[in-house]
Amino acid sequence: MATTKKTRGRSTASQKTTTRAKKMVYFFGGSRTEGKASQKTLLGGKGANLADMTSIGLPVPAGFTITTDTCAAYYDIGGRFPGGLSDQIRKNIRKLEMETGKKFGSTTDPLLVSVRSGAAVSMPGMMDTVLNLGLNDKSVVGLAELTGNERFAWDAYRRLINMYGDVVMGVDHHHFEAAFDRIKKGLGVTEDTDVPAEGLRELCQAYKAVYRQHVGAAFPTDPYKQLELAVEAVFRSWNSDRANSYRRINEISGLNGTAVNVQAMVFGNMGEDSGTGVAFTRDPSTGKNVFYGEFLINAQGEDVVAGIRTPEPLAAMSRWNARVAKELGRIRIKLEKHYKDMQDIEFTIERGTLYMLQTRNGKRTGAASVKMAVDMVKEKLIDRKTALKRIPANDLTQLLLPSFQGKSKAAAETIAKGLPASPGAASGGLAFTAEEAVERALAGEQVLLVRKETSPEDVDGMHSAAGILTSTGGMTSHAAVVARGWGKCCVAGAGDISIDAAKGRITVGGKTYGRKSVLSIDGSTGEVMVGEIERVIPSKVSGDLATVLKWADGVARMGVRTNADTPQDAKRAREFGAIGIGLCRTEHMFFEGDRIKAMREMILAGTMVNREKALKKLLPYQRKDFAGIFTAMKGLPVTVRLLDPPLHEFLPHEADSQKAMAKDLGVPLSEVRRRVSMLHEMNPMLGHRGCRLAITYPEIAKMQARAITEATIQCLKKGIKAMPEIMVPLIGTRRELEILRELILETIAVVKKEKKYSGKLSIPVGTMIEIPRAALTAGDIAEVADFFSFGTNDLTQMAFGYSRDDAGVFLPEYVSREILEKDPFQAIDVTGVGRLVEIACQEGRMTKPKLKLGICGEHGGEPSSIAFCEQVGLDYVSCSPFRVPVARLAAAQAVL
Amino acid sequence: MATTKKTRGRSTASQKTTTRAKKMVYFFGGSRTEGKASQKTLLGGKGANLADMTSIGLPVPAGFTITTDTCAAYYDIGGRFPGGLSDQIRKNIRKLEMETGKKFGSTTDPLLVSVRSGAAVSMPGMMDTVLNLGLNDKSVVGLAELTGNERFAWDAYRRLINMYGDVVMGVDHHHFEAAFDRIKKGLGVTEDTDVPAEGLRELCQAYKAVYRQHVGAAFPTDPYKQLELAVEAVFRSWNSDRANSYRRINEISGLNGTAVNVQAMVFGNMGEDSGTGVAFTRDPSTGKNVFYGEFLINAQGEDVVAGIRTPEPLAAMSRWNARVAKELGRIRIKLEKHYKDMQDIEFTIERGTLYMLQTRNGKRTGAASVKMAVDMVKEKLIDRKTALKRIPANDLTQLLLPSFQGKSKAAAETIAKGLPASPGAASGGLAFTAEEAVERALAGEQVLLVRKETSPEDVDGMHSAAGILTSTGGMTSHAAVVARGWGKCCVAGAGDISIDAAKGRITVGGKTYGRKSVLSIDGSTGEVMVGEIERVIPSKVSGDLATVLKWADGVARMGVRTNADTPQDAKRAREFGAIGIGLCRTEHMFFEGDRIKAMREMILAGTMVNREKALKKLLPYQRKDFAGIFTAMKGLPVTVRLLDPPLHEFLPHEADSQKAMAKDLGVPLSEVRRRVSMLHEMNPMLGHRGCRLAITYPEIAKMQARAITEATIQCLKKGIKAMPEIMVPLIGTRRELEILRELILETIAVVKKEKKYSGKLSIPVGTMIEIPRAALTAGDIAEVADFFSFGTNDLTQMAFGYSRDDAGVFLPEYVSREILEKDPFQAIDVTGVGRLVEIACQEGRMTKPKLKLGICGEHGGEPSSIAFCEQVGLDYVSCSPFRVPVARLAAAQAVL
Repeated sequence: MATTKKTRGRSTASQKTTTRAKKMVYFFGGSRTEGKASQKTLLGGKGANLADMTSIGLPVPAGFTITTDTCAAYYDIGGRFPGGLSDQIRKNIRKLEMETGKKFGSTTDPLLVSVRSGAAVSMPGMMDTVLNLGLNDKSVVGLAELTGNERFAWDAYRRLINMYGDVVMGVDHHHFEAAFDRIKKGLGVTEDTDVPAEGLRELCQAYKAVYRQHVGAAFPTDPYKQLELAVEAVFRSWNSDRANSYRRINEISGLNGTAVNVQAMVFGNMGEDSGTGVAFTRDPSTGKNVFYGEFLINAQGEDVVAGIRTPEPLAAMSRWNARVAKELGRIRIKLEKHYKDMQDIEFTIERGTLYMLQTRNGKRTGAASVKMAVDMVKEKLIDRKTALKRIPANDLTQLLLPSFQGKSKAAAETIAKGLPASPGAASGGLAFTAEEAVERALAGEQVLLVRKETSPEDVDGMHSAAGILTSTGGMTSHAAVVARGWGKCCVAGAGDISIDAAKGRITVGGKTYGRKSVLSIDGSTGEVMVGEIERVIPSKVSGDLATVLKWADGVARMGVRTNADTPQDAKRAREFGAIGIGLCRTEHMFFEGDRIKAMREMILAGTMVNREKALKKLLPYQRKDFAGIFTAMKGLPVTVRLLDPPLHEFLPHEADSQKAMAKDLGVPLSEVRRRVSMLHEMNPMLGHRGCRLAITYPEIAKMQARAITEATIQCLKKGIKAMPEIMVPLIGTRRELEILRELILETIAVVKKEKKYSGKLSIPVGTMIEIPRAALTAGDIAEVADFFSFGTNDLTQMAFGYSRDDAGVFLPEYVSREILEKDPFQAIDVTGVGRLVEIACQEGRMTKPKLKLGICGEHGGEPSSIAFCEQVGLDYVSCSPFRVPVARLAAAQAVL
Repeated sequence: MATTKKTRGRSTASQKTTTRAKKMVYFFGGSRTEGKASQKTLLGGKGANLADMTSIGLPVPAGFTITTDTCAAYYDIGGRFPGGLSDQIRKNIRKLEMETGKKFGSTTDPLLVSVRSGAAVSMPGMMDTVLNLGLNDKSVVGLAELTGNERFAWDAYRRLINMYGDVVMGVDHHHFEAAFDRIKKGLGVTEDTDVPAEGLRELCQAYKAVYRQHVGAAFPTDPYKQLELAVEAVFRSWNSDRANSYRRINEISGLNGTAVNVQAMVFGNMGEDSGTGVAFTRDPSTGKNVFYGEFLINAQGEDVVAGIRTPEPLAAMSRWNARVAKELGRIRIKLEKHYKDMQDIEFTIERGTLYMLQTRNGKRTGAASVKMAVDMVKEKLIDRKTALKRIPANDLTQLLLPSFQGKSKAAAETIAKGLPASPGAASGGLAFTAEEAVERALAGEQVLLVRKETSPEDVDGMHSAAGILTSTGGMTSHAAVVARGWGKCCVAGAGDISIDAAKGRITVGGKTYGRKSVLSIDGSTGEVMVGEIERVIPSKVSGDLATVLKWADGVARMGVRTNADTPQDAKRAREFGAIGIGLCRTEHMFFEGDRIKAMREMILAGTMVNREKALKKLLPYQRKDFAGIFTAMKGLPVTVRLLDPPLHEFLPHEADSQKAMAKDLGVPLSEVRRRVSMLHEMNPMLGHRGCRLAITYPEIAKMQARAITEATIQCLKKGIKAMPEIMVPLIGTRRELEILRELILETIAVVKKEKKYSGKLSIPVGTMIEIPRAALTAGDIAEVADFFSFGTNDLTQMAFGYSRDDAGVFLPEYVSREILEKDPFQAIDVTGVGRLVEIACQEGRMTKPKLKLGICGEHGGEPSSIAFCEQVGLDYVSCSPFRVPVARLAAAQAVL
């Protein structure tokens, strides 16, 4: 089906490409660059970027890009090269030869190229890179002579045959590996790097045999043939299953095809005057405006990333080659001026000449993100709106990350120091494989994943772990980059630690620590310490973050409230910038000390009179709770939700506790048991709870309304501007709300009279919209509601028919198999649940144009859901205190 | 709020009424009748009917109607009589005097009248009747002289004072009663009828004292004053709380007000030449075309109803007064000709003169309804369409279920009353567990399964039992729903019964009944009786019912399918006229004998291979089941739903059964327990079931698809035209259906190849729409569905957030307090759930205009829901076999 669609989408392009000999190839290089940054659609992201870097005068190895239209044409004519493409490729290879002074297929100074795919949208699933293309049995000899490095030349050649066979021809990689293993065994060595030139030459023969055996033809010696087959492989990879499914899942459509980038090779491993490195134009960890990176002498790019050798910091470069170091410094400035953002660059020095291989916006920690945004505004590089848009709202949680408590930390023994790869503080037992980390974390344990280095296969374990500790690898190693992306604590390259994963232990400073040892790592300093250390959690928003959030508040239309049930939470949320409480749950208030006793008395009471007696005992507690919260919120509105959970949640279910309760309340055990069994429900989520309790036991709602009103009057008399709003949960019909609204308003009036309070007392009464039927009949319900607050947790449960308590059995599989795009409890399901919200907003406001609308489900703190809330016109979102800063920024971004 | 609306609605009427002296009073009587049947809006239902009866020449006591507009005008000018009203009333009283020859307030031959309210729509909550108005201390004497019956006169007077005080002035009735009691005590009598004229005269004095005391004024002696106050009381009753809330709940709006009917009194208790009676123009029980009724000589209407004296059958009337009897016979014919329906009449003979007091369409049994409809078509009184519209579809069930023989039942002792959960009648010994019921039933005994409540584990026992009796649970409990589905008799929630299953006995009303006691339950009334009672077994669909249903099929657009899981059910439904199976559940098929063992093996299997092994054992059973059903349906379509319930429903939950299972399967008990506990769910309704099972265990769906396909091919090879349709339950996302559809189609193709079947094999694959999100995204889902079938049971549970198993605690209260108009599990909630259905229909058909749409929830057999299905354009409804005739008729009515 996907194929049909694509063909349809491409038909116009095909007509163009076939009727006239179109320009299919765009050159980039010192002499002339034909493409530009804006031509992403035609040249793909990578092609446009290469052209752009070249244009601004960066020393980029020359090359050319075959357009995405050409890929489309390839498919339109049934999978053949369009007429003229071979010619245009040859013409551009000749240009490239002119530019580099080398010759394609030459036996003396061969031009080698890389071939890469690159669509307009970055898209895993398409072809990987083929390097060193252009080598064959003859030119490899030339390369060896030219570089005076036979080993290098044969190494390059064997890499080509391997990559080409694997990537272009689909020969399974392990066939090549087996051949390599045989040779290493014959030589009596274990490391690739220990194989001498002779061995590599032999390996090339063996690889060619593997190639012939599995491809059914000899490895092509004609470099043009190599190139054309590689280009075709890129074209074909556009329509691979993986690429198609990636596009379907990510709803990518309307693209022509992929471009193909052919670029001259440069080598950082040509000797001691060569090298390679990666760098960030600012510190990606702190955001400081310093040049930050590392390089390796006589090495290739992948060596830096793989973390096999420990690289040197960029600062050390001028000692090695001052000219190159200076040039790199100039390029850094140029890049930031041009891209107006921090860049992540890759470079190679081939025999003293600097080449830029890549530049892209750099990943960064939340803290760095904020600091850079604020700094760049100060530097007038960007404006405030750009700054706001650029900070990933979710990353702000990292700024609110825990750190070790000073004294406790000072008292702890430090056993090693690694690189401060990703800030934060974590303690835990040691897990040595990703699987182990996942398992133990699922079992509820805090673990640190300890690895020599990490690879993409480890991401699950990394995610499960409280922190990550590696013994090799630098600040840009896999572990460091991934951990920073998540805001997870990581110490990398702690070289003193020797890891024995098989035995499940590490050795450092002569001591051994096993699975059950607990260590602590400080991702901001790189320290590794013994034992668990107390952590502190920040409680305020200050510095650059405060600046950013102030800007955000200036832009946002929606307000941000918080979900808080205690004065402490309320205070914290206010300090994080919440402008009110959007959800104050009252059920937690019934559990402490004597309260639960009175609550249980109430539940056991057989008559309304006895229930009222028990409720009378609860009243003073509730009143005090509310007064405390109103006081903490200093005049900001507080939405109090009436009792929501089913009554059985307040009764003990185990025999011993039931006995204790019976004794405590002086009732027979049988009576307790009887009540517990009577209250048992098959599906408590869909049972007797929420407003249904208030309808059948109006005295409960009455007591709560009384407590709220009494607390309000008490505060107001003290000069504290209490602003309660009463919210009725689980409304499914207009009549329920009507009955309860009347009861609440009556109670307020009675209390006002009793307390002889003559001032104005306006307590709005509204409802949660958390039942599908409530959303579908919101127009009616709005007639008797002062506000709606969307309870998207329950709404999601009921709209999907998923119980949060039970969906764990299939939901992760649903997400991983992409049956669901995202976990609908994390990000709101716009299509289904969102549609209910939209209906309720529109029809509620049709009835009452000024109806106040908010959200208090967990989605209220999730950026993509917040964007949805903005779109449907909510007045505020409400989230947990720690997510308030995230929500403030996300609310601004939703407007921008 | 309600008041404001009404005022707004009435403003135009008020302008009219106040600008010119409008006609406010319409006379009816032998001399002249001003109103007519079509003027319901103006004269109210009762007024129009009185005018109509008079017009066709019936001997109706004369009178007049004050219009509803007048009531509106009364309110518009602030609660005063509009100008001219008093005059018009007086003018009409004079006409009435002319007509009757009596005089209002006369001391010799006083005219007495009744005053009644009557809006355009029948509306309880407004004023009751005031009789004998016009009497006072003087005219009562005249009446006594005129009738020569002093006791009659004083009795009429005391009734007036009592009714007038109560109804017009709001004096509590018990004040009058207390006065009466004192007098009776003084006379030493207990019955009202034993009080002589003297005592009644004294009573009138006492009543007037009561009146004065509570009203603060004397009882009005001016008959015009009496009348005007009574008219005003009727006007005021229009705006009483009771009337307002009745209108709000029943969504009655747009009415002006109530009319007031003033009518001359006639008396059946004026002596042996007077009498009163009620009659039906045909037998309301059998429908036979015979005059059917009873009368009492020298009595008032209420005496017949109260049953104090035994009335005589109508047949005896000619012996008493042949002339009157003949006249009544003529009137009977006239009425049926005029109203074209069976009439329920009230009449009074005052001193030999016959008066008709009321005629209305008579209530009747289902059987009578059918017979009358067919007869009246034959008699050319009505056409077929009218006949179809007139039969209450639900009443047809009465024609199909067994019931207790009337006399035998009357003789039996009733010991408890529960809810009439599933109609029918059953007797049997008491079985206290499902196993016991199965065993004893197998041994040939008739048993009633007696449980506190039932669960899916009990279905075998429920199926085996003759009837089901539960002590908790409502009309929508598991027991009730399952029993109704099967047409099996069930009494639910008989709370007076205390069950001791361990001891095998129940206690009720201080008596104990054990395993060997035989009880009888009446599922149509909820009665529980002692002993076996003779039953009357229903006739099949034949005779008049068959005629009616044939007519219905000719009119209906929608088809009627059935929900059936066995060949027996399938056959029965086909005999009741089902044109296919709309829901064939497959889970029941896994419970019998060896199947449950294989099913449990499958559930316990840790690997897919072992699951497949166990499923292989189930395959032949399933294939046989399907082949049986396809054969029974003789070429009609059969929609098979894949496995739906969560797996834990197939495992035992009690220790003993678990032990037995462990032994049976040869696995450790701990393993059984572990699996049971792993499968436990907090909210199974929202858990791992339906298509979610098929997604995680595709092998189950594969086995079922294979069984269906193999059974189909097997049938086709035998020349039986099998027409299966495969239905996937609980779809919430398009992708789920896409994956499973692919799996099913693949399996079909594989089986077709294996069986070397070369014929056409078209098995549509569709989905239930039973999750709100599925309805909301139906446009997407339709792309991969051949049909939709609405599972409105689950859709209602999720749209409302009600668990059927648990809602019994609040749902009955919700219905009785009119928070919900109807139990949404019985009649579809058009506003909420219906909206989801409508969205799904519209958007599904937008994607696929020919998409087949059906319903298979219990609503598929409920007439008001069927009307909704017609409206949204479904192709068929599917219901339990016993409701097929109901649905056929309802489907026709929906068109008409």
